[in-house]
Amino acid sequence: MTTLLPETSPRAVRERIRSGEWTRPTAGLAPGRVQANLVSLPREQAFDFLLFCQRNPRPCPLIEVMEPGVAEPLATAPGADIRTDLPSYNVYREGVLEATVPDVLDYWRDDLVTFLIGCSFTFETALASSGVPLHHVEAGRNVAMYKTNVATTPAGVFAGPLVVSMRPVPREQVVKAVQVTSRFPNAHGAPLHVGEPAALGIRDLASPDYGDPPLILDGETPLFWACGVTPQAVAVASKPPFMITHAPGHMFITDLRDEDIAAL
Amino acid sequence: MTTLLPETSPRAVRERIRSGEWTRPTAGLAPGRVQANLVSLPREQAFDFLLFCQRNPRPCPLIEVMEPGVAEPLATAPGADIRTDLPSYNVYREGVLEATVPDVLDYWRDDLVTFLIGCSFTFETALASSGVPLHHVEAGRNVAMYKTNVATTPAGVFAGPLVVSMRPVPREQVVKAVQVTSRFPNAHGAPLHVGEPAALGIRDLASPDYGDPPLILDGETPLFWACGVTPQAVAVASKPPFMITHAPGHMFITDLRDEDIAAL
Repeated sequence: MTTLLPETSPRAVRERIRSGEWTRPTAGLAPGRVQANLVSLPREQAFDFLLFCQRNPRPCPLIEVMEPGVAEPLATAPGADIRTDLPSYNVYREGVLEATVPDVLDYWRDDLVTFLIGCSFTFETALASSGVPLHHVEAGRNVAMYKTNVATTPAGVFAGPLVVSMRPVPREQVVKAVQVTSRFPNAHGAPLHVGEPAALGIRDLASPDYGDPPLILDGETPLFWACGVTPQAVAVASKPPFMITHAPGHMFITDLRDEDIAAL
Repeated sequence: MTTLLPETSPRAVRERIRSGEWTRPTAGLAPGRVQANLVSLPREQAFDFLLFCQRNPRPCPLIEVMEPGVAEPLATAPGADIRTDLPSYNVYREGVLEATVPDVLDYWRDDLVTFLIGCSFTFETALASSGVPLHHVEAGRNVAMYKTNVATTPAGVFAGPLVVSMRPVPREQVVKAVQVTSRFPNAHGAPLHVGEPAALGIRDLASPDYGDPPLILDGETPLFWACGVTPQAVAVASKPPFMITHAPGHMFITDLRDEDIAAL
């Protein structure tokens, strides 16, 4: 991995982002700190979405939920401002993408409830530390993601299919990969499935629904994890009147250490 | 433990309770099944309470949250009815206990959101299976519970002190007790503190705030766990206009097995 920024403290990295000096994806920034998916919804839809996350903890592990109109994540990044501290945002109206913008100060509303949702960067760091290869990271590509035939548990206005990410793992490291990721239930946790793509209704691994086609080597087994694209895709599908999210890969960097959200 | 009921299936036990044949506490019924604390609140307070539980997962581990007006726990006990399937309920108005009743059919409202919250019975079963003695169970007494000087994380209208339960554990089994309960984060999980009551602001172990005074033998260390009394105490303290809860010890018996909510 190349050196990305001279700073490694999450506060310093957020300042670089806030000032507009860093506009690219956040993978590799502030190593060892928990990064999060962002969803901001009006109070009117917030109870249903909170319920959706509670019922679907694998794709939607909640790291922090902020009260209406609050822009500072008091629990996970005091002093930060989620309206400015991500490199790129998507703004949706009625489920349609309206704008991709570097901050959302002009879009902010006092009735917005913000959800910070765990991200696979946490368990990818743990996998790499355990010697499990991650081809997409090594190749500088996005992980392959697939819509499945598994329905999430609906809540109020929110419903839709589960999205999974796939990482090929050498057969002799499958047990290790399960163990390592099991420690991080707040970052999608253990794989949902080991092996057969058809068991999840996935026809062709070479044609992912999101991200880049995967590289799978001889002797590798596909492992499937619940994916943080799920809550965003489900939220979009339900066409809420207004919603702000992070742009894919441009996450919010919290002060939490990966170990802070480990189960054991 | 004496034989309590001829039935052990959760559905059969709930039918005994629904018919009025069983009116006593539920400890020991349907062994190995997850029992839950009950809180039903109007939709108006439900978002804040759901947020409170999300922010305080140790005292308030959510097993299931039902949508407004829904009385059947579709995820954890399909076919059950939370208005009739607990042996005893408390009904509160403005935070004041109005009635203790064997069912709440006459009190039910279409705007009530029901929260099922994990209970220490799950980890007590696991401790007993691991050979850790539980004096209060052996003596047929209630566990000792204490208000602490530790504040919960507030959410909307809900705030208040953390309540803990205390179990004395032989020194040589303290590590085992931590390991065993760590497996059940959805039933309060690992102890919050080992050893010194003063660290939690507890002055006198012999004078608990709830439950019965404990028996502590020579060579035993007090272990403190987050307690399911916390959400009910906090909810009462915030004086919601209307609230239904289980009567202490008279829990809701789900179909889930204890192992279904184990982290690993």
